[in-house]
Amino acid sequence: MPEFLTLLTPQEARQKIFEALSFPRPLMLETIPTQASLGRVSGRDVYAPHPLPMFNRATVDGYAVRAEDTFGASESLPAYFRIVGEIPMGQETTLRLNAMETALIHTGGMLPANANAVVMIEQTQRITENEIEVYRAVSAWENTIRVGEEVKEGELVLPMQKRIRAVEVGGLLALGITRLEVVKKPKVGIVSSGDEVVPPEQPIQIGQVRDVNTYTLSALVQQCGGEPIPYGILPDQEEALRQALQELKPQCDMILITAGSSVSARDYTARVIQQMGAPGVLAHGINTRPGKPTIFAVCDGLPILGLPGNPMSAFVIALHFVKPIIFALQGLTVEQTPPRVEATLTINLNSQAGREDWIPVRLIHTEQGLLAEPVFGKSNMILALSRADGLICIAAEATGLAAGERVLVELIE
Amino acid sequence: MPEFLTLLTPQEARQKIFEALSFPRPLMLETIPTQASLGRVSGRDVYAPHPLPMFNRATVDGYAVRAEDTFGASESLPAYFRIVGEIPMGQETTLRLNAMETALIHTGGMLPANANAVVMIEQTQRITENEIEVYRAVSAWENTIRVGEEVKEGELVLPMQKRIRAVEVGGLLALGITRLEVVKKPKVGIVSSGDEVVPPEQPIQIGQVRDVNTYTLSALVQQCGGEPIPYGILPDQEEALRQALQELKPQCDMILITAGSSVSARDYTARVIQQMGAPGVLAHGINTRPGKPTIFAVCDGLPILGLPGNPMSAFVIALHFVKPIIFALQGLTVEQTPPRVEATLTINLNSQAGREDWIPVRLIHTEQGLLAEPVFGKSNMILALSRADGLICIAAEATGLAAGERVLVELIE
Repeated sequence: MPEFLTLLTPQEARQKIFEALSFPRPLMLETIPTQASLGRVSGRDVYAPHPLPMFNRATVDGYAVRAEDTFGASESLPAYFRIVGEIPMGQETTLRLNAMETALIHTGGMLPANANAVVMIEQTQRITENEIEVYRAVSAWENTIRVGEEVKEGELVLPMQKRIRAVEVGGLLALGITRLEVVKKPKVGIVSSGDEVVPPEQPIQIGQVRDVNTYTLSALVQQCGGEPIPYGILPDQEEALRQALQELKPQCDMILITAGSSVSARDYTARVIQQMGAPGVLAHGINTRPGKPTIFAVCDGLPILGLPGNPMSAFVIALHFVKPIIFALQGLTVEQTPPRVEATLTINLNSQAGREDWIPVRLIHTEQGLLAEPVFGKSNMILALSRADGLICIAAEATGLAAGERVLVELIE
Repeated sequence: MPEFLTLLTPQEARQKIFEALSFPRPLMLETIPTQASLGRVSGRDVYAPHPLPMFNRATVDGYAVRAEDTFGASESLPAYFRIVGEIPMGQETTLRLNAMETALIHTGGMLPANANAVVMIEQTQRITENEIEVYRAVSAWENTIRVGEEVKEGELVLPMQKRIRAVEVGGLLALGITRLEVVKKPKVGIVSSGDEVVPPEQPIQIGQVRDVNTYTLSALVQQCGGEPIPYGILPDQEEALRQALQELKPQCDMILITAGSSVSARDYTARVIQQMGAPGVLAHGINTRPGKPTIFAVCDGLPILGLPGNPMSAFVIALHFVKPIIFALQGLTVEQTPPRVEATLTINLNSQAGREDWIPVRLIHTEQGLLAEPVFGKSNMILALSRADGLICIAAEATGLAAGERVLVELIE
């Protein structure tokens, strides 16, 4: 498919590649320690192996009682209880209360048999070593948490295909679930190409540029839950690219190529990708800025993207196309990814109708809420993005945005 | 300071601790590879060691020319140029153009001496091996990017005290800055206490609960850019806590204690903290739910927080107090932290005036924008947070929030 003959809209391109990838696909799972699962995606529904709490617990410091024994108690007419013991923390108690008996209990302590409430210590008075006055009636199960009240045995505590945060790690460990089946990290091959490209740590000559894409794309892949497989820098040679893709294909779940910047380099990149499997190249050129010369392909189920060589363009395209694919490869939907942030645009922006534009913006916190201020400069350099907090979109059908309009900002993280 | 005699508002508590920590404080720096700096905070202003680009570059494929030689060129009256060479990619060219001379150049190639524009290849025609017709005039520097146009030598490319994202890593590497001075990760000691608390991997007895706080707090500390130093589980003994704090104090930038859940445990926790240095305990009890029994202290410049033992309460308090302190210890301001997300509340919520309430909510994506739906259940368990995407605040002065109100959601990540 020669370049730019058919400029797709970004939506069409995204739809084509998602259709060709035929999601939902079976997920590859592995078992890891729950403590190491932060940021991973659950591979199975997880059910509570036992109720929580496992025993009736006091939620205050005070005296365990049978609630009915406190009936009618008040400041003027206290109820009298005989102390039969103190509940030790962290141990099962064998105490059992009879009528008008009580036991001293601490927050988190286990209720003795027959007890069904706790009177707060502030509402009691010790009158002898073995006797207290109770100044307030308690209702059944007041100041307690009962077996299974937090989680019942067999209850779903973590659905499959959910991104695991600190709170999920905590909830699972509370139930003693110390190992967890999670989705394997998608492996993403990253190939940089161009005769003029050199590694950043190498001395540079006039005429050369340093490789940036390998590092920005690796960072983005990691942040999305994938594992980057950097292949290195290739010369502008069709055969070198073919060999790299053949080597990466069996070990990767996705491949990213930042194409050499000349027309001929982009042409042979599309040709080599096309030979990697069916259906091959789905789109060559999309109507968006930055990112027009992007190549979208699926080869034997493997997504392969040819990104622009310009680091800023490559990064913006990766945010909008690579990120959702890595999420989908883990079984996550767009709804589960961090939402965009609403803000008010500070100035008018013009745009060419038919083309989707992405504009870097800085967020400004004000009393009236967040403002989105476009970051300008002729530069389409990666350092321009470093002055921005996020990107806003001017849709293909629009010819611009007006100052004061509410916009959604995709954060750069 | 005995518990709860003086319930501070959360704002007062935050202000007291920030004042006692006397920010801005000198930052401890270390030098690391730029590639490993993702998520770290820059320790110094970084300036461009050389301009970018380092040479005048073509931004299209075409022919390098002196712009003035194309004056008046059109389809009907083309200008004729003699080809004197082809610019190799990735090398310095020694070519020099005289009047009506041109050289074939590829995107990213270096302009020869005297050239100041590039004619796009589509606007030329090769008529002999050494001659082309040019069908369009170009203005000076058209289709080029000049030395220093992206970044000038000596220009500020990364200010100090900025959180480093993928785009900053890329920008620095583009300039060959492969090592970077960053703020050292604040070390945060984490102490769990309670006679009833056991490690999650250990068999559990009736009467015991598993340690959760060590893991949820460690995860949160890492996400904020800190380094957790988990100390383990202590029995409810004043002396054990004193020893732990004395051991942690010299090696930590902050200490978190999840206090045993009884009143007496909370009392001796405050007493031990008080002995760790001046000014000591600043607040014992804040008017917020969850999190009322929180202890705030600064001892010889070291922030020490006594968090509630309940994992859900401890986590919510950590989000609102620990997170901003870890950011401030790195020299970051609240404005540099991820903004809250606006959404529309789905139902009425009541709250006690004078108390700040934090309510877990689920975010729902709709055509009309984001909705925030409170997650209910009696449970104040960490697993309740796992059904939530974030928290909304009912301010102390309010008695509730109305359905349809716009609310700010603090995301749980």
